[in-house]
Amino acid sequence: MSAEAAPGVEPAEAEPGAAAGPGQQQAVLLAEMVEDAAVWCALHGLVVGDRADPRSGTVPGVGLVHAPFSLLPSRFPTSFWKQACELAPIFNELVDRVSLDGEFLQAALSRQVLNYILTTYRFSNFRTKQVDEFTARLLEIHEKMMAINKKEAIRLGLHRSDYMLDSETNSLLQIELNTISSSFPGLGSLVSELHRTLLNQYGKVLGLDSKRIPRNWAATQFAEALGKAWAEYNNDSAVVLMVVQPEERNMYDQYWLANHLKESYGVTTVRKTLAQVEAEGQVLTDGTLVIDGRTVAVVYFRAGYAPTDYPSEAEWKARLLMEQSSAVKCPSISYHLVGTKKIQQELAKPNVLERFLDSKEDIAKLRKSFAGLWSLDNEEIVKSAIEKPDLFVLKPQREGGGNNIYGHDVRDTLIKLQKEQGESLAAYILMQRIFPNASLTPLVRGGDCFEDLTISELGIYGAYLRNKDKVILNNQCGYLMRTKVSSSNEGGVAAGFAVLDSVLLTDE
Amino acid sequence: MSAEAAPGVEPAEAEPGAAAGPGQQQAVLLAEMVEDAAVWCALHGLVVGDRADPRSGTVPGVGLVHAPFSLLPSRFPTSFWKQACELAPIFNELVDRVSLDGEFLQAALSRQVLNYILTTYRFSNFRTKQVDEFTARLLEIHEKMMAINKKEAIRLGLHRSDYMLDSETNSLLQIELNTISSSFPGLGSLVSELHRTLLNQYGKVLGLDSKRIPRNWAATQFAEALGKAWAEYNNDSAVVLMVVQPEERNMYDQYWLANHLKESYGVTTVRKTLAQVEAEGQVLTDGTLVIDGRTVAVVYFRAGYAPTDYPSEAEWKARLLMEQSSAVKCPSISYHLVGTKKIQQELAKPNVLERFLDSKEDIAKLRKSFAGLWSLDNEEIVKSAIEKPDLFVLKPQREGGGNNIYGHDVRDTLIKLQKEQGESLAAYILMQRIFPNASLTPLVRGGDCFEDLTISELGIYGAYLRNKDKVILNNQCGYLMRTKVSSSNEGGVAAGFAVLDSVLLTDE
Repeated sequence: MSAEAAPGVEPAEAEPGAAAGPGQQQAVLLAEMVEDAAVWCALHGLVVGDRADPRSGTVPGVGLVHAPFSLLPSRFPTSFWKQACELAPIFNELVDRVSLDGEFLQAALSRQVLNYILTTYRFSNFRTKQVDEFTARLLEIHEKMMAINKKEAIRLGLHRSDYMLDSETNSLLQIELNTISSSFPGLGSLVSELHRTLLNQYGKVLGLDSKRIPRNWAATQFAEALGKAWAEYNNDSAVVLMVVQPEERNMYDQYWLANHLKESYGVTTVRKTLAQVEAEGQVLTDGTLVIDGRTVAVVYFRAGYAPTDYPSEAEWKARLLMEQSSAVKCPSISYHLVGTKKIQQELAKPNVLERFLDSKEDIAKLRKSFAGLWSLDNEEIVKSAIEKPDLFVLKPQREGGGNNIYGHDVRDTLIKLQKEQGESLAAYILMQRIFPNASLTPLVRGGDCFEDLTISELGIYGAYLRNKDKVILNNQCGYLMRTKVSSSNEGGVAAGFAVLDSVLLTDE
Repeated sequence: MSAEAAPGVEPAEAEPGAAAGPGQQQAVLLAEMVEDAAVWCALHGLVVGDRADPRSGTVPGVGLVHAPFSLLPSRFPTSFWKQACELAPIFNELVDRVSLDGEFLQAALSRQVLNYILTTYRFSNFRTKQVDEFTARLLEIHEKMMAINKKEAIRLGLHRSDYMLDSETNSLLQIELNTISSSFPGLGSLVSELHRTLLNQYGKVLGLDSKRIPRNWAATQFAEALGKAWAEYNNDSAVVLMVVQPEERNMYDQYWLANHLKESYGVTTVRKTLAQVEAEGQVLTDGTLVIDGRTVAVVYFRAGYAPTDYPSEAEWKARLLMEQSSAVKCPSISYHLVGTKKIQQELAKPNVLERFLDSKEDIAKLRKSFAGLWSLDNEEIVKSAIEKPDLFVLKPQREGGGNNIYGHDVRDTLIKLQKEQGESLAAYILMQRIFPNASLTPLVRGGDCFEDLTISELGIYGAYLRNKDKVILNNQCGYLMRTKVSSSNEGGVAAGFAVLDSVLLTDE
């Protein structure tokens, strides 16, 4: 979180000249920094496909533009940083433990699907309906795997847990835990290097020390986890299958992983869409997943996390096919389900974490990071929310987020819901509202720099790999700061477009 | 030169499938290689500004596209490769020696300007007229420096000598020697790395050994030369001034040098156009060149080599200003003039090299690389050319090339010129025609691969730095293969668009 405004640089065009005043000097400095930064991106592969080029999401090497970034790293207190890093291996372990409890997942998520059936005619719109149908389909695959008693001996998780700093409670609160397709390990690592390079050059003038940017090896560490999972599969000619969307402007983030996998582990990555997997993939009688005549050791999903990734039955067939195979799935269907919003709620309930973890200390650490989450059968909380609606967010009980209700609308909706039947209440949950500090930050997009009010979200990557009883990896590995233009000054988490960012550790 | 066709790969779209035939397998292989190569370019900064994006020549980080490249390195015989590399330090020394003989430069080039005046009304078109006016202006600056007896103690040359292999004579022949703004040291180094990476991956299948691609450190070695020149200037707070064109789609080639200069030598590079230098630069009474309040140690020209770089008197003023200063010029006006076509002709005349070099062995090596060049007062040669016009090219006696006359037109033009006055003959020269082998090569441009008939030109970079009597550097440093689509099958040097390429050494 940028608890303070960025250092004294102003987003203005440079007007170079020999006799520049202090304001002009700042403008010249800013223009130089923006140029240096944009050049650094172009030379070091910190790039994305440009929306303006229709081929940029399908043809590599064309329509490139630097990824949008914050010109300077965002300040973040060292104590909260350490807290977030410490949580990574605990969350890794939690995901693994919960994934093994198929009954728990089925019970929690079936209730959600049931709720969906009960409330669909009254509350659901097309999008939320689609999302719960999506969960139902995932659950169906999970159920099939349970029915054949399928066990995953080698389990690989590449997670990202996202946090915000809440200024009201002065605490680090988890926003969500991503267990599928955690994005930006490749570009995120590069942004940290970009900021380090800029501060090495301009840090003295700005009063910022590049050493305060934590090293970020997310890309190489994710590649290491994929490489080690590949090695556990133990077939030298096997490949990693990266499941991708048909159009992907963030392809270079993905290609960075494939690049490290090749360079450091000699492992080839094959990219396929779900539809291509359905058309070209097969599972042999011994469970081997084969595509293009090549055995797949690891399936790494960078697609398949959203309802829109499954436009037809073909994609669902592909997902089932891969799940049935002996390839290592990153994630397996169980890992994927553990990352749903509904499971996040279940885990936040009293005595649930205790079912999965032994260490009381670990449990306390996790719980400390949970924002308050309540179902509307909790009359006391509903009463509080009607009294102080600004401290809560009213959320539809659905995967996928969005359509959140804030402020006075919380009160009005709660009163309306109370007058209706019980099923209406079940369609929503109340969540503690998080108040991140907003700060003025110089952002660079499309080569242009401008200053805007922003809030930041810290993602901590975690890698977990085990083979039966042997835990091979359980690491925190790098981070991603995402800084978002604040859509309003209400201080809510609602945010506009995001830029990539890194962390500048501060003492306070 | 690609003396043989590229290995068995076909430029076709991949049609992946489990049961692919040999042709399909080749197509799949080719598609994979093209994808890998384009991705490599995007991740490693082998990029240029895309002409389709109007901002790509002025705003860094936007409108990027991979540089056009040959999918595989071009075969080149080791013996000719060694010969070309050996010539680099000799040409470096030659340039330095000739640059010191101001009278020689003035005499040779004044004759050209005189010819221009004599023939301008009859033969010159706007472009060639412009070119000779350009030489006259350069000569004027040179004359001014001679008049004040200006000596350059620290002399830095970053040259590129370009060669083709002539299949008629089986010899390596020099096309030209670039003493100003030798382009592509940055991207050229990267293409060698790209090809090495591709052959490490696909070399076995293709029967090509990546170890046969010579290492190419052109970018770091040019940066080293600039860094050492900067150190000789001996002012820790001074900068390198890179003089650039207002619009430059090849900016990343230039930025790679600035990047290495910063990383390895801690030297800051300031980019300015000639017009900006005129507006913002000044020379102090002690000769110090100052721009934006910063002392310039080295002026590195990546503009100023073409008449179009001087659209007004402002640009000429800037050139003179820098030449008058004590900054190291890369190149000085003398070095620049040594690289003109006219001086190339003069140096090819009998007994001229002997005026500048002591070693007979070196002189023999240089002379061996000179293509035949004759003025039309040589009646014997004119007779030969009328008899066998296919072995000659008739060229206008001008800087800048172009408008060359080939085949039957050589005969017709010579006969016409003989009937006219002597001044007509003086407007042209005859040059030995070079017959490079053409080969079918897969080229990648804009993400698409296609095969075309190509010829190749090998550029060898050389760096030379001395301070008074002390020669600090005299190196061959890296290379650039440029492979050009052959505009016809006549075997001439006329060529269409070029791609970046590297060398695969062969035994023959």
